[in-house]
Amino acid sequence: MFKIAVMGCGVVGSGVCDILLAKQEEISARFQREVKLSYIVDVRKMPDTPYEKFLTDKAEDVFNDPEVRLIVVTIGGLEYPYLLSKRALSAGINVVTSNKEVVAAYAKELSRIAFENKCRFLYEASSGGGIPIIRPLNICLSSNDILEIQGILNGTTNYILTKMSSKGLSFDTVLKEAQQKGYAEANPAADVDGYDAARKIAILSSIAYKGFVEYNDVKCTGIRDVKAEDHANAAKLGYVIKLIAGSKLLPDGSVTATVEPKLVPKDNILAAVNSVYNAVLVKGSYTGDSLFYGKGAGKLATASAVCGDIIEILGRPTEDTLMPYVEKDLKVSNDTDIPCRFYLRFDITRAIEDSVSIAMREIFGPETVFAAFGGVLGMITPPIKESAVEGLTRAFEAATDTDFGCSMRVLE
Amino acid sequence: MFKIAVMGCGVVGSGVCDILLAKQEEISARFQREVKLSYIVDVRKMPDTPYEKFLTDKAEDVFNDPEVRLIVVTIGGLEYPYLLSKRALSAGINVVTSNKEVVAAYAKELSRIAFENKCRFLYEASSGGGIPIIRPLNICLSSNDILEIQGILNGTTNYILTKMSSKGLSFDTVLKEAQQKGYAEANPAADVDGYDAARKIAILSSIAYKGFVEYNDVKCTGIRDVKAEDHANAAKLGYVIKLIAGSKLLPDGSVTATVEPKLVPKDNILAAVNSVYNAVLVKGSYTGDSLFYGKGAGKLATASAVCGDIIEILGRPTEDTLMPYVEKDLKVSNDTDIPCRFYLRFDITRAIEDSVSIAMREIFGPETVFAAFGGVLGMITPPIKESAVEGLTRAFEAATDTDFGCSMRVLE
Repeated sequence: MFKIAVMGCGVVGSGVCDILLAKQEEISARFQREVKLSYIVDVRKMPDTPYEKFLTDKAEDVFNDPEVRLIVVTIGGLEYPYLLSKRALSAGINVVTSNKEVVAAYAKELSRIAFENKCRFLYEASSGGGIPIIRPLNICLSSNDILEIQGILNGTTNYILTKMSSKGLSFDTVLKEAQQKGYAEANPAADVDGYDAARKIAILSSIAYKGFVEYNDVKCTGIRDVKAEDHANAAKLGYVIKLIAGSKLLPDGSVTATVEPKLVPKDNILAAVNSVYNAVLVKGSYTGDSLFYGKGAGKLATASAVCGDIIEILGRPTEDTLMPYVEKDLKVSNDTDIPCRFYLRFDITRAIEDSVSIAMREIFGPETVFAAFGGVLGMITPPIKESAVEGLTRAFEAATDTDFGCSMRVLE
Repeated sequence: MFKIAVMGCGVVGSGVCDILLAKQEEISARFQREVKLSYIVDVRKMPDTPYEKFLTDKAEDVFNDPEVRLIVVTIGGLEYPYLLSKRALSAGINVVTSNKEVVAAYAKELSRIAFENKCRFLYEASSGGGIPIIRPLNICLSSNDILEIQGILNGTTNYILTKMSSKGLSFDTVLKEAQQKGYAEANPAADVDGYDAARKIAILSSIAYKGFVEYNDVKCTGIRDVKAEDHANAAKLGYVIKLIAGSKLLPDGSVTATVEPKLVPKDNILAAVNSVYNAVLVKGSYTGDSLFYGKGAGKLATASAVCGDIIEILGRPTEDTLMPYVEKDLKVSNDTDIPCRFYLRFDITRAIEDSVSIAMREIFGPETVFAAFGGVLGMITPPIKESAVEGLTRAFEAATDTDFGCSMRVLE
């Protein structure tokens, strides 16, 4: 008997229970052993649900049952799910989690404990929701040197940006609507300020580059400052605005890791990733570009990734190798002064005259292009250093009747 | 010592050797055992290459060395690579192959032999080239019921269709250019008639639906009849033409499996898959749509997939479960009479008059739309049954001065 306990029966946890209850016979037949959801640990009562008969409010019940071989940790927060995971792994019990806070903060320690106790710690659902991305990076693509990752890793912000762009609405309006629909939380900071995407790109980067990336080192800019006019200008110039979580291997072996809104050329496949969908573009030394696309959140999509990890463990119940990131830390060196094209927004206080475009090309270079919409001028510069942006925008303000608003990088 | 032998040092085989020679130290360190390319079996001599010192023309040398733990089968053809694979697996030696002919024809038998001899038979490279798709289907997504797969699985035809569309060129012109560039073979039948894609969709479907799909049952239509004018008309109507290898689970447990050119709506993510890139869209009961995109062919991309399988085997050297398709055959029931929108092409022998569009809407229904380009009329019908197409087109020919050319389905 291979008993499974689900700890935390919230959105993802209840989805895992639903799938297990529907599929445990099929899974048992495939692996020729009885696999069974046996405990659901939650303080809530949940009468008249399919979960009721598995419920306990005591984690001890799980740890006291020697037939429990796998614990699904779908509890939110940080310290309690971490301690539960640690305790299980230390006892040789496999752990599967969707909790990205725990993975981003403790994957090194928990992976080592799993290895030392001949069990496994898997977390496919922690990044990219239902998209298979962690196992492909860790196995299928791992003979490559991964050179770069660019991801749309947060469904809430992608929904907001898509809606702003397609309907011409402001950030505040769309955020409110997303909150009403349940796509955004009452306190939306983790999503809209980029911290959620920062944890996910740190997790993916640690596996891809085979060295641990500390999520606090990810340079993070959210989407609060993106205006409806920026979307309109970007569209006219052939771009869409996306919150891109990216990392890049540098020649010295360190990496850059950033989350920031960027202008994505319309013919880039990431431009086609809309609404709550997520996508991860991986540049490998042998494969070139690969893209993984799907639902980045949601009860059953995320639960599907958890169940994929359960199936993986049923096929291979011990971790025979230490994950490469456990023994190596990666330096995050966000040298942002590599020349890059920028989108710059200026508020224009009078009608655009020829003098503005003459000044623009004089100051930023002849390849600069612009579009104007509703009192806002957006331009795309030739490649310039970030450190040069401030001086150039001041010169432009002085030469014209404009006020600098914001800058965003163009995805190359 | 974990010795690896590569059998067949052609395009993919030499790529595998290149990656192993570059990465075998890194791989050895990761798995804490010495992993080493030890033999390359090929009848050619290859003097002054890095392969020379591993070369032998006798497969016996490999089978006589008890330290050989894995054989990479990158020989083309069918019977010889099959017999080599069978012999290795029967001796408990792992086999990794990129040979889709062997996989499509013999995966059931070879997977069973691997299971019975406690070794593994893996073939990630056989479908989708460098794209991780087989392992994601087999593990990550396997708690889902897979409902549908739609793939662009042949790089040669996608290159030809992309080029025809972007440059307005004829099939023959682009095929000739593709042959000169090495993107198409001297005898292009396997690619342009769809047989290559048929094998690949059969392989993916067997894993996805957990029952064996016989590739000879895949209904196959190639791209020879697609004209430059069809691309122009499709573009005007908001579509691009792609060779789609698709399969779908039917309510009775059987599947449809087809390869045919289809009109893909421009806002479908498959429409953005251009040139030699491949992509596979997978509809799961829990995940909804997932897409896997990347290089479907090429020396190093395909070799990367082979090396991913080698890494998988180093982590888990025995197959503990029989692949579900080994014990279950799937019925392929290509009931093509499910109503579907069609693109129909008519040659027009005089200028289009109002009477043509009146006749069109009378015969095909009021939602029919059309575009005309260079003497060719293209229309998109409302959903109709395939069995009705012939009668309707005859009625249209009779009512107007046109000749029916071809029909293609619209991807829904």
